Amino acid sequence: MMEIYRSELSQKFVELFLEKMEFTEEEFSITLSYFKREYVPRKYFYLKAGQISRQRAYINKGSTRTFTSDEKGGEHILFFAFEDWWVGDLESYYNQQPASVNVQAMEDCELLVISKTDLENLWIQIPKLKKLFEQKEQRASFATMHRLQEVKSLSAEERYQNLLNKFPQIFQRIPLQYIAMYLDIEPQSLSRMRKRLSGK
Amino acid sequence: MMEIYRSELSQKFVELFLEKMEFTEEEFSITLSYFKREYVPRKYFYLKAGQISRQRAYINKGSTRTFTSDEKGGEHILFFAFEDWWVGDLESYYNQQPASVNVQAMEDCELLVISKTDLENLWIQIPKLKKLFEQKEQRASFATMHRLQEVKSLSAEERYQNLLNKFPQIFQRIPLQYIAMYLDIEPQSLSRMRKRLSGK
Repeated sequence: MMEIYRSELSQKFVELFLEKMEFTEEEFSITLSYFKREYVPRKYFYLKAGQISRQRAYINKGSTRTFTSDEKGGEHILFFAFEDWWVGDLESYYNQQPASVNVQAMEDCELLVISKTDLENLWIQIPKLKKLFEQKEQRASFATMHRLQEVKSLSAEERYQNLLNKFPQIFQRIPLQYIAMYLDIEPQSLSRMRKRLSGK
Repeated sequence: MMEIYRSELSQKFVELFLEKMEFTEEEFSITLSYFKREYVPRKYFYLKAGQISRQRAYINKGSTRTFTSDEKGGEHILFFAFEDWWVGDLESYYNQQPASVNVQAMEDCELLVISKTDLENLWIQIPKLKKLFEQKEQRASFATMHRLQEVKSLSAEERYQNLLNKFPQIFQRIPLQYIAMYLDIEPQSLSRMRKRLSGK
């Protein structure tokens, strides 16, 4: 198996373990030895609806969209994710049932992945690892709740502002038609809105 | 403080602890001694947006709606909840920040509540209690994800069918205009849809 070198890791990944979770160097080395690198080129899928999610994935580089498809082939974007986010389908992962969402690379992605079995073994060795994943899951849960509230209550313009606040560089990294899809508006409306609001 | 008698508890609450979580009778008695009863009459609020959620609440009897309000006074229903559900705003509870949602009684409610401080003390005594709340939170998180997917991808008719599958008695317990609000359709459209689909 190819080793992952420290120099190839994003600074945030190192900080997550060594600073936020206060791992020792040894605990971090052990943890890292369980992770594998997975490349997902742009437009390829990390996870397809119907598959079973058997690992956790950290975005070391790149971006993804998480979306569902309807019967008519329509696609509905639930989330974008960039560096330092974890992606996947947690219900599929925990219950080993088919995923209900797709995760597709929007740019060439370098993921750091750890299998369910490895993670379960590892957190027997390093119990505070469980805490880290619990925190990440709680964050993901709150983010899902925010997104639901926003989709139900906010106007397209308010949702646009939220997105820009969260990801100021999104227009440099994600094609406009996908951002429009996320906002549930037409690409032309998004172009007009963008022009109008940036002219303020 | 008024004691809660076993005979007043829903069977499901007793089963949750004694069967699903395999509590001993003693553990269950200790746990129960920390819970308080809280009555919330129909139309009253258990939680208002802006307040801080300082306790967990189990619906022993009754039903609630969880909703957000927009700037124009519009209300957006995220969830209904009936007996054997837990309600509140978890992000507010964990981060002790203002709640972003309202929880209002749709029928006279009898809740079994436990404060944050009591719960934290209690799960030092009974560690498996933590597991129970973790499971409930994970379920709530998955339910939020399902709701987001449904709101983004499904037609009003499909969302109506999902709701009926989940709560077959909903029309007997929740006024039609609230069900229409949950589905984001006009009450008249819901009446027509209901007639059409029940005539099949």
